[in-house]
Amino acid sequence: MNNKEKLSQLYQEAVVNINGVITRAEDAKVSIFDRGFLYGDSIYEVTYSDDKSILFFDEHLDRLYHSASILNMHFFIDREMIIAETIKTLKHSGMGRAYIRIIVTRGETHITLDPNSTIKNNLIIICKPQPHFDDLIYQKGIKLSLIEITVNEIQGPDSHAKSGNYLNNVMAMNEAIKLGSDDAIMINKKGFITEGTTFNVWMVKDGILYTPPISSGILKGITREKVLDICGDHKIHLIKEPISPDHINQADEIFITSSTKGIMPVSHLDGRCLGNNIEDWPITKRITQLYREVVIKNKESKEYFYG
Amino acid sequence: MNNKEKLSQLYQEAVVNINGVITRAEDAKVSIFDRGFLYGDSIYEVTYSDDKSILFFDEHLDRLYHSASILNMHFFIDREMIIAETIKTLKHSGMGRAYIRIIVTRGETHITLDPNSTIKNNLIIICKPQPHFDDLIYQKGIKLSLIEITVNEIQGPDSHAKSGNYLNNVMAMNEAIKLGSDDAIMINKKGFITEGTTFNVWMVKDGILYTPPISSGILKGITREKVLDICGDHKIHLIKEPISPDHINQADEIFITSSTKGIMPVSHLDGRCLGNNIEDWPITKRITQLYREVVIKNKESKEYFYG
Repeated sequence: MNNKEKLSQLYQEAVVNINGVITRAEDAKVSIFDRGFLYGDSIYEVTYSDDKSILFFDEHLDRLYHSASILNMHFFIDREMIIAETIKTLKHSGMGRAYIRIIVTRGETHITLDPNSTIKNNLIIICKPQPHFDDLIYQKGIKLSLIEITVNEIQGPDSHAKSGNYLNNVMAMNEAIKLGSDDAIMINKKGFITEGTTFNVWMVKDGILYTPPISSGILKGITREKVLDICGDHKIHLIKEPISPDHINQADEIFITSSTKGIMPVSHLDGRCLGNNIEDWPITKRITQLYREVVIKNKESKEYFYG
Repeated sequence: MNNKEKLSQLYQEAVVNINGVITRAEDAKVSIFDRGFLYGDSIYEVTYSDDKSILFFDEHLDRLYHSASILNMHFFIDREMIIAETIKTLKHSGMGRAYIRIIVTRGETHITLDPNSTIKNNLIIICKPQPHFDDLIYQKGIKLSLIEITVNEIQGPDSHAKSGNYLNNVMAMNEAIKLGSDDAIMINKKGFITEGTTFNVWMVKDGILYTPPISSGILKGITREKVLDICGDHKIHLIKEPISPDHINQADEIFITSSTKGIMPVSHLDGRCLGNNIEDWPITKRITQLYREVVIKNKESKEYFYG
């Protein structure tokens, strides 16, 4: 499919909720005076549902409110309302398995950077079919490149807030695609690995699992947290420390984690081949299985069931 | 006026052009799938008109296309069309003196960071009454604070592209307001002065004028360029070099430049008083007068006259 067809498919399939009103995707619009549009001044979460259960929703809501607090965002919407509106949107969509994006902006401005100039947030909930990543991707892995691009760092507001200020990530992905990769791992100013454009990064060397600590300037991924729990529960040897490009270039296995991708193996880093098949990556394979069990357990709890 | 009244005044007064269609400000909306809204993936320019002439429009258009090129943004809109649409919007507004904001986004996405996933840009032109800065401000000056916040730096895509990725600037302004100032000067990771949230920064010490070079990670302001020309033409002693907080803390005069603010004196930096009146700042006063002459000349050229 070309870009036009993909967009038109999205418009056919997605259901959008804008401040409580369910809207056709094609008609889903926001004021051009919204600070999300003018300044990237918004926060968001992405999760998904499966068998009509929203996965790890509490954790995502916690992080949403945490992001708001980091950015000093007045939050006029209560948690129960976000839950109710999300469930309403999912029910309306009829989808049992959906990608869910929740965006909260600081609201409309009379064009001043002053964040205290708004009177209400805008809440946008997008539900669309969960993107289908072919089973083959999980068997064969994806290609990544290391990109030396300024990531939003620890002194800045962004590293821990999940904001809509994503231009650096857009540019990193663009560089990686130019280099023939699928996506990018970004390097911070001190020269250490941080995170991917939309995912956290893990590597295995000599049977030990490594991932960058939060202090490297990364977002506290929900799936990352789940994998940390798995390592604790199953005595998998894990070291959280700053990872250099030299170190990751000698990795035996690399995988990435995100709410939409789950655990996804990496077949190439900057052209270097790490193997051809999930069978080549035993720790990645084991964590994939253990994570699947965590997801099933969460689903079976039916905590956020909308059936 | 409170925030609600200010917003409702904006909605009454502004005229918006969205992809060639003139729209009431209240109805001016963009798709929530626009990359400007989702990722801050847009570029923009702000200029103004006076006596029905658009000021320094060529320079702004040059920079707009330069920003697009830095960000690898496919630009499907030609320059003549932007000029024609801007003039159409201004004529429709009836305003002789208007604030003009031109925004170009990479367009709508089926929700992927990949910047090659779009099929057309969105072009938004906002015209509203030029914000009135009281004459008193130009006589008495404003209060600034130095804020150590991550500015988007030279390795990143942002320092020279004028993008809509402004969350760091929003947060810097927020900090400054908390400290009792009007606005912020941002410091880069090396500890040097860069720029304000929406303006370039200048200081005078012992009769010499200083401003940070582009290599400090600043945007090439159009008004900054005009002041550089003025310094050359009038033999004003100017040094472009990285400025430390220590250096600016000993300044005799500080002023800021932007298209909307022009030359604006600074009365306080982090609480330290630099004087009470434009008469205390002879170089600021002289440059204000010389800049006014440049503006009048540009206006009289009637290059972008829409009367």
